[in-house]
Amino acid sequence: MIANQLPAAEQMKTLWFDTAEGCVRYIDQTLLPHTLSILTLQSADDAANAIVHMKVRGAPLIGITAAYGVWLAMQQQPDSLAQVCHSLLQTRPTAVNLRWALTRMEQALQDLPLNQREAAALQLANHLLAEDAAACSAIGDHGLAIIKDLLAAKQKDHGPDVILNILTHCNAGWLATGAWGTALAPVYKAHLAGLPVHVWVDETRPRNQGASLTAWELGRSGVPHTLIVDNAGGHLMQHGMVDLCLVGSDRTTAQGDVCNKIGTYLKALAAFDNRVPFYAALPCSTIDFNSMDGLTEIPIEERDGDEVRLVQGAAEGGDISRVAVTPSATRVSNFGFDVTPARLVTGLITELGTFDASREGLGRIEKALRS
Amino acid sequence: MIANQLPAAEQMKTLWFDTAEGCVRYIDQTLLPHTLSILTLQSADDAANAIVHMKVRGAPLIGITAAYGVWLAMQQQPDSLAQVCHSLLQTRPTAVNLRWALTRMEQALQDLPLNQREAAALQLANHLLAEDAAACSAIGDHGLAIIKDLLAAKQKDHGPDVILNILTHCNAGWLATGAWGTALAPVYKAHLAGLPVHVWVDETRPRNQGASLTAWELGRSGVPHTLIVDNAGGHLMQHGMVDLCLVGSDRTTAQGDVCNKIGTYLKALAAFDNRVPFYAALPCSTIDFNSMDGLTEIPIEERDGDEVRLVQGAAEGGDISRVAVTPSATRVSNFGFDVTPARLVTGLITELGTFDASREGLGRIEKALRS
Repeated sequence: MIANQLPAAEQMKTLWFDTAEGCVRYIDQTLLPHTLSILTLQSADDAANAIVHMKVRGAPLIGITAAYGVWLAMQQQPDSLAQVCHSLLQTRPTAVNLRWALTRMEQALQDLPLNQREAAALQLANHLLAEDAAACSAIGDHGLAIIKDLLAAKQKDHGPDVILNILTHCNAGWLATGAWGTALAPVYKAHLAGLPVHVWVDETRPRNQGASLTAWELGRSGVPHTLIVDNAGGHLMQHGMVDLCLVGSDRTTAQGDVCNKIGTYLKALAAFDNRVPFYAALPCSTIDFNSMDGLTEIPIEERDGDEVRLVQGAAEGGDISRVAVTPSATRVSNFGFDVTPARLVTGLITELGTFDASREGLGRIEKALRS
Repeated sequence: MIANQLPAAEQMKTLWFDTAEGCVRYIDQTLLPHTLSILTLQSADDAANAIVHMKVRGAPLIGITAAYGVWLAMQQQPDSLAQVCHSLLQTRPTAVNLRWALTRMEQALQDLPLNQREAAALQLANHLLAEDAAACSAIGDHGLAIIKDLLAAKQKDHGPDVILNILTHCNAGWLATGAWGTALAPVYKAHLAGLPVHVWVDETRPRNQGASLTAWELGRSGVPHTLIVDNAGGHLMQHGMVDLCLVGSDRTTAQGDVCNKIGTYLKALAAFDNRVPFYAALPCSTIDFNSMDGLTEIPIEERDGDEVRLVQGAAEGGDISRVAVTPSATRVSNFGFDVTPARLVTGLITELGTFDASREGLGRIEKALRS
């Protein structure tokens, strides 16, 4: 475990271009929190595998990884642009950033001479990474304003010694993005500003990204947090133990529906039932202006049932291993995402500011993006 | 695995009095689904341990086990009645059956001469077991009527070849009761009647009673079922894949609030939001007529955080082992139950029939119990 050698949250990256070696390095997220393993992206196929097997995950990071995959393909075979973009697009169906990043790469490169594609691809991939990091930092700033307001209101009601309790689902931290994270960016900014925040971390079955990634991230940065099972959030909200829900988004529609990790909808229902503000934090690259009704228009990925049957973790001796939690013959269904209707979403925190989750709010975002 | 030597669901018991040997046998539920181990209840302390460590669990079964614990104490020390009832009552705080069974035992035995207590205790414990089995069978019959109605309505809309999809949370099958189960009793009766039912089984973190017990129970009886993570039910309901939610109850209040395994409330919210009928199935012994507001009046058990940190299952070689899913320093909160407000509950299926989850409905139950 070399985690302690890593810099603090505000400097952390989960994937970066190693200028000295001229290659892309990334953290293998399937081995966290028990082993920190840094891999090198070898080829476009390697990028596709890293995405499919969730060595990299999180909507923004998937797009960035795919962009570097295109660069690696341009190194080897500059005339494979359309084909490599097409095959990378097949890796995961739900997050829209993948399409967004690949479209940007393809459009920027397709009219260039073959011998200029590699350099242009690297430049654009680096730009997408930097752009996402900057967007996430801005999300952090806009979300911090919300945290400050909620904290001030709570202090007014209950005195100065209160703690603001934030519930998050899955991992939308720096591991999932170019830097900072989306849902966790405001948390890190609040913690760095010395504000008393505490995070309830949903473990996020079946892949336990909360237990394995979010808890690890927050622990490294010293942000107070408590792990809970996905079943617990409703009870906490009923009893006033949650002041704010903050989640990421894999795809947001033009009417403000939020597609995110399976189970997000259940937390949004509980937040609505208990008048807890529920925000999704997302770079505008995750908005799909071409879809309106998230429930009918977004393809929901179904993944291997073994993700449910087998739970991975560290065995007593420290080895990473898996145990079966169900009879081997048990049939399993494993949808990766669900859609939270806009009516349950208090607001969307983007790099451009916070907007209503509505056609009007999304219209304002679209207008701002064009200007 | 000697599971195949067990009889079919309608004859199965998870705890029984072995008349040949004069002792109480029970299935150690902490080893299922991988190992079927039958233990003998040795003493009142042993009964308390079996309850605390969840070798037996489920509201009705906890009460029955405690009753047999009193019998074992009466064998050894007939003057320890008040003390043993008091200490057994401390084992778990949420389910009300424990108090109900112990009160019945204490009231029946306290005025008897010491030398008559053992025989009377055994007789009453056997009676409570038989009574619960009969109650659960009646719950099955009343729930079957609901299933038949929903199936007929679905067939009317979609043709004769439909399947009725039932979502359940935790384990409320024969493993949790004297026989049949509560929520699963109607399912077993429907399956035995040849009706096309399919069960979505919530895995039910942190202890995975769905994955390990409900899937095993249903599999043994050939009832079609599919395991899902606790996060998935909302998505399924949004997409019309659930026709009925059926859960148990650890304590039901006089206004119809249902306290059940943590996460039940989230499923009730999703059912309400998607107009899916949501029923709790329970013997009247789980009703606490002395409490009204479940949210403020029911003590919610908090259990060891290692239940969340460590996941138990079968390792590759078949040995039961545990893996850690989170950094070892991670703080954990582990509430065992939540409360579903009556407004979200379509009805209460009891041995006396199906009632509204309301003061009026509970009033009718109370009146029927007195008559």
